[in-house]
Amino acid sequence: MIRKYTFGTPLPTGAAVLSLPAETSPLPWFDVSREGEKLRLTLALHPEERLFGLGESVRGINKRGFLYRSWNSDVFSHTESTESLYGSHNFLVFFSPERLFGIYLDDPGLVTWDLGYSRMDTAVITSENGQLDIYLLEENSLTETARAFRRLTGKSYLPPRWAFGYIQSRWGYASEKEIRTVADGHRKQGIPLDGICMDIDYMEAFRNFTWKKDAFPDLKRFCAEMKEEHIRLIPIIDAGIAAEEGYEPYDSGREADAFCRKADGSEFRAAVWPGFCCFPDFLRKDVRRWFGDLYRPLLEAGVEGFWNDMNEPALFYTEERTAAAFSRAEELRGGHADYEALWSLKDAFNGIANNPEDYRSFWQEPEGRRVRHDRVHNLYGAFMTHASAEGFRRFDPGKRFLLFSRSSFIGAHRSGGIWQGDNFSWWSHLKLALQMLPNLNLCGFLYSGCDLGGFGCNVTEDLLERFLQLGVFTPLMRNHSALHTRDQEVYRFSILDLMRNTIRVRYALLPFLYSEFMKAALTDGMYFRPLAFDYPEDPRAVATEDQLMLGEACMIAPVLEQNAAGRYMYLPEEMLMIRFRSPEDYDLLELPPGDHRISLSLGEFPLFVRKNHAVLLCPGGDSSETLNDHDFTALCLADRPVSYDLYRDDGTDPAPLLSEHLTRVSLAPADRVAKIHVVL
Amino acid sequence: MIRKYTFGTPLPTGAAVLSLPAETSPLPWFDVSREGEKLRLTLALHPEERLFGLGESVRGINKRGFLYRSWNSDVFSHTESTESLYGSHNFLVFFSPERLFGIYLDDPGLVTWDLGYSRMDTAVITSENGQLDIYLLEENSLTETARAFRRLTGKSYLPPRWAFGYIQSRWGYASEKEIRTVADGHRKQGIPLDGICMDIDYMEAFRNFTWKKDAFPDLKRFCAEMKEEHIRLIPIIDAGIAAEEGYEPYDSGREADAFCRKADGSEFRAAVWPGFCCFPDFLRKDVRRWFGDLYRPLLEAGVEGFWNDMNEPALFYTEERTAAAFSRAEELRGGHADYEALWSLKDAFNGIANNPEDYRSFWQEPEGRRVRHDRVHNLYGAFMTHASAEGFRRFDPGKRFLLFSRSSFIGAHRSGGIWQGDNFSWWSHLKLALQMLPNLNLCGFLYSGCDLGGFGCNVTEDLLERFLQLGVFTPLMRNHSALHTRDQEVYRFSILDLMRNTIRVRYALLPFLYSEFMKAALTDGMYFRPLAFDYPEDPRAVATEDQLMLGEACMIAPVLEQNAAGRYMYLPEEMLMIRFRSPEDYDLLELPPGDHRISLSLGEFPLFVRKNHAVLLCPGGDSSETLNDHDFTALCLADRPVSYDLYRDDGTDPAPLLSEHLTRVSLAPADRVAKIHVVL
Repeated sequence: MIRKYTFGTPLPTGAAVLSLPAETSPLPWFDVSREGEKLRLTLALHPEERLFGLGESVRGINKRGFLYRSWNSDVFSHTESTESLYGSHNFLVFFSPERLFGIYLDDPGLVTWDLGYSRMDTAVITSENGQLDIYLLEENSLTETARAFRRLTGKSYLPPRWAFGYIQSRWGYASEKEIRTVADGHRKQGIPLDGICMDIDYMEAFRNFTWKKDAFPDLKRFCAEMKEEHIRLIPIIDAGIAAEEGYEPYDSGREADAFCRKADGSEFRAAVWPGFCCFPDFLRKDVRRWFGDLYRPLLEAGVEGFWNDMNEPALFYTEERTAAAFSRAEELRGGHADYEALWSLKDAFNGIANNPEDYRSFWQEPEGRRVRHDRVHNLYGAFMTHASAEGFRRFDPGKRFLLFSRSSFIGAHRSGGIWQGDNFSWWSHLKLALQMLPNLNLCGFLYSGCDLGGFGCNVTEDLLERFLQLGVFTPLMRNHSALHTRDQEVYRFSILDLMRNTIRVRYALLPFLYSEFMKAALTDGMYFRPLAFDYPEDPRAVATEDQLMLGEACMIAPVLEQNAAGRYMYLPEEMLMIRFRSPEDYDLLELPPGDHRISLSLGEFPLFVRKNHAVLLCPGGDSSETLNDHDFTALCLADRPVSYDLYRDDGTDPAPLLSEHLTRVSLAPADRVAKIHVVL
Repeated sequence: MIRKYTFGTPLPTGAAVLSLPAETSPLPWFDVSREGEKLRLTLALHPEERLFGLGESVRGINKRGFLYRSWNSDVFSHTESTESLYGSHNFLVFFSPERLFGIYLDDPGLVTWDLGYSRMDTAVITSENGQLDIYLLEENSLTETARAFRRLTGKSYLPPRWAFGYIQSRWGYASEKEIRTVADGHRKQGIPLDGICMDIDYMEAFRNFTWKKDAFPDLKRFCAEMKEEHIRLIPIIDAGIAAEEGYEPYDSGREADAFCRKADGSEFRAAVWPGFCCFPDFLRKDVRRWFGDLYRPLLEAGVEGFWNDMNEPALFYTEERTAAAFSRAEELRGGHADYEALWSLKDAFNGIANNPEDYRSFWQEPEGRRVRHDRVHNLYGAFMTHASAEGFRRFDPGKRFLLFSRSSFIGAHRSGGIWQGDNFSWWSHLKLALQMLPNLNLCGFLYSGCDLGGFGCNVTEDLLERFLQLGVFTPLMRNHSALHTRDQEVYRFSILDLMRNTIRVRYALLPFLYSEFMKAALTDGMYFRPLAFDYPEDPRAVATEDQLMLGEACMIAPVLEQNAAGRYMYLPEEMLMIRFRSPEDYDLLELPPGDHRISLSLGEFPLFVRKNHAVLLCPGGDSSETLNDHDFTALCLADRPVSYDLYRDDGTDPAPLLSEHLTRVSLAPADRVAKIHVVL
């Protein structure tokens, strides 16, 4: 049951698709109080209570024991004490033997979640706006709670099938020639590849919707040539529009009055990559339409996928903030600046970017209301995503486009995927990526993945390999790295053979993983789940923090530590372990329920399958388009006949019907552990 | 066997106490090459080779897979990609089935250790100075290698026995009154306590060797009063001397020509807490003598312990660096600063502190040679430690003083302990603390521990409790936190009962842990060891990264993860597990060798004991001085009579003879798992 409780006059967020009447009774479970405008919800936690949700945030699958702030932030170097990441996902599920419910705060402003942080036994949730709808979801299971939340907020975005291929990316690829080198590097080494991301360097002066004419003399031709090699180009688009007269998007934006304004009516300007930019008011429908149509030249050149970036929005600096820091410097110059003064000056310069005052200095107009940006801050990236998706749909309603964004809010999961933000080449970020995935799924974001290898810092060979082993199973499988870091294309490493085989396993599994993804998306399910969702009665499963359920009947448990040649893991029930080294070389082991120590040398990674369920492997291939997906090897541990419903479609249908695309694979295993050839 | 290989004219470091002739044959194992002045050692690594050592550094017990730089650094916010920490310990042991040797680069300048970082299969060690002694240690076992290294570099520092008590610390305690509140807070709540650290706020204007007369009107009386309550005051001393005429240490330092000078002969000045400071040239014997005597007023007031800080040395700013940043600001002001210009300006301000150019701008005089500071940078803190210890010895040669330093170099382990540097309230730093400890021990630093609860960031209740559970076993058991973070004294928390019991277990174990420590120190052994040292033939033990051997026959395996109610662990042999909840409440479990999942709720933590060895528990007490250490409970798993040699002394003898202080405890257990009352 989903119930809505309205406090004051909520700001529109576009998150809910279900229109519910507001309850008149008080919100159950919580003590509700006001402190000025703030609304505060307080709840005593049960000792065994676990908290799932909050999508993109640091720390474990269980969110208990930290303070989170929903405030979309460009936080390149986040650690376990970072309170805000790139997206805000205000859905949290309370789960204990005593109770089960989910709460969604449909609030576009700052929400803080003190979840056993100040006191271990208390949760305190605070909305700064204090004007919001709160939805309470009470269902019979965790899985049903997740499903109900999707019912409330809408179906998850469907990417095209090629978006499940391996994607290579790097901040720095600046020309057709460089991109060709990357493509050739993969093809020559037999490393499968489906896409190459173009980061900001493809643009002319970092201006959205342009490209360097000398570096990309004929983008359409280049797109076509790459597509013949089954490689898609995936350009980046940033949120800000360079404020330069003569630059068409700026001129047309001004004409459409599309940009956010300050209180005095002037354009709000802040610098991002191209210098000073204006910021489209994506909360306005007409602005979204204008912006969505700006993608057209790239779409016409043949582009079928984009990533939207810097849309928290990230603000490098404004004139006001810069001037204030410079004035402070001027004050201190010459005189004796003590360490406190000097540190305050450092803070002034470091605090120029993404400054809260700047977010309070401009206004937006959601549904005709005039609202200061900070009150609706967390919607910005989400509505950029909507704008893009709407534009693609207008351009070609007959197919799916790839779209993933850095910033997000619940609701955006209907229009695009997200990557897990700018991360680092850290083992702790590999673990973080894993732990974040089920909570993203719970909040509707099924198409996701982290920057494999890490965006910032220099990767090591073993870390990249272990990242790839997680990436084999994430819908978005992208290797991405930042300018000035170590080159990260897999063909550059001494352990290329291991890496190639890991990526080849992704392609052997691609039809199966795609099937699992589509079935989850089309039935409002979760592709990745905490083990608690499948084994709610098993306290050990419920507490497991480094394994994930995948699809209908699989589980992953990657190695997350340096120099480890194996790991401990918990099996809630009997399962088959497939220990991959390559699509052709793997072990099949029948494992009883309980604790296990699994040996996993650097090139090895496991996939677990529940008894009487099957995994399908295809022979693989160099790209998703050249895969043979008729010829499968089914792997299972079974004591009876087994069937699997394989979802297959053309990979582009924007509104596929599940029932029309399922092929039943029936298996009659001769042995308990079986490997069966299937032709479909 | 220890062999010395000399390259060029080495700079003196004081690390070695053994005088060896230089070999004439080439250095075995490594390819040796020159690149300009740099000396480079290259070695192909065996696939299974593990690397132990490098003392204070990030990442795992096995140092393979990262690039480390020996360059003592004030790195408040270190992460897994931080290449340098506060100390430099250039000793590394290569261990594989094929070979075993240790290498020590006796080099006071920058040394980089690419240990399978660029290529997984290659180690490259580079000395920037290129003039150094390299010692090669080839012994029959890891343990013997460690012992040989102590033979080369000297015996480990012995702290007084009270230094094994619980110590409370916080940046911010500014008066007698505040310190009394902290003392009372512990005593009233029955939380044992032996010491309170006084951070910089006790000083008058942050000047070393002063104290605020209004806040501490009679330090001698206060010291005595606290000591009557069995609580020691432990003031901080920083490296820099405020450059103010009329301030005695500055005046006397100038008179003694004690301060480092720039090339032009002028005093090198950089700001630290008190503003501009001069930096004693600790590498000169006469300067050490002058500096060591400056502690006298505090010693005369009754102080028996100190911590030396900021001795990398940390430099907040110099006039030159500040002026350069301000000039850069001036250049950019007004004109259009693009993001690159602005970021370079940010870098300029952020880079004011600890700037490499500043370290190249002054000179020191080790043993009469004139050397630019950067060439001997890593010695600075170590020789401050020597200066202090020499001063204490002159003041009272008859007793041990507590001394622990932030910065260090090998050799300093003879004069003092170290804390593990400024850390954060992070779970990852709890794990880091554990992983660093055996490598510190290997390099001679036995008296050590981390800032329990974390110095920076706000701690959570569960994290502090888990930190304390590690702290129970670390020789230095100090709770320390930074100004502006959440108050961290244990009596402030809702789970105080758990925390109190954890600290009480420390006191029940104190005589035993002290005995283990002293035996390790006096026999050139290691108090904490990687499991590899005790089970070199067991590949699983060798690979264990989150358990430590402790003393003769114990092992620890603390919980290192949030929300975990247990953990996996590996037992290389049959052991007794003591699962503590308090000194009175614990479980005794006999565990077979192999993998285990141990249940450990928040208040529980384990100690493991090898078969036919015993652990002794005393009844505990409020301080180390009021402990009853005659009345023990011996715990063991045994199938034969068991004996334990308990080391006991007066806790202050500076040169105790091991054989004179051992009491043999003979036990005849009636059951396999036995709990035996012993009166000594």
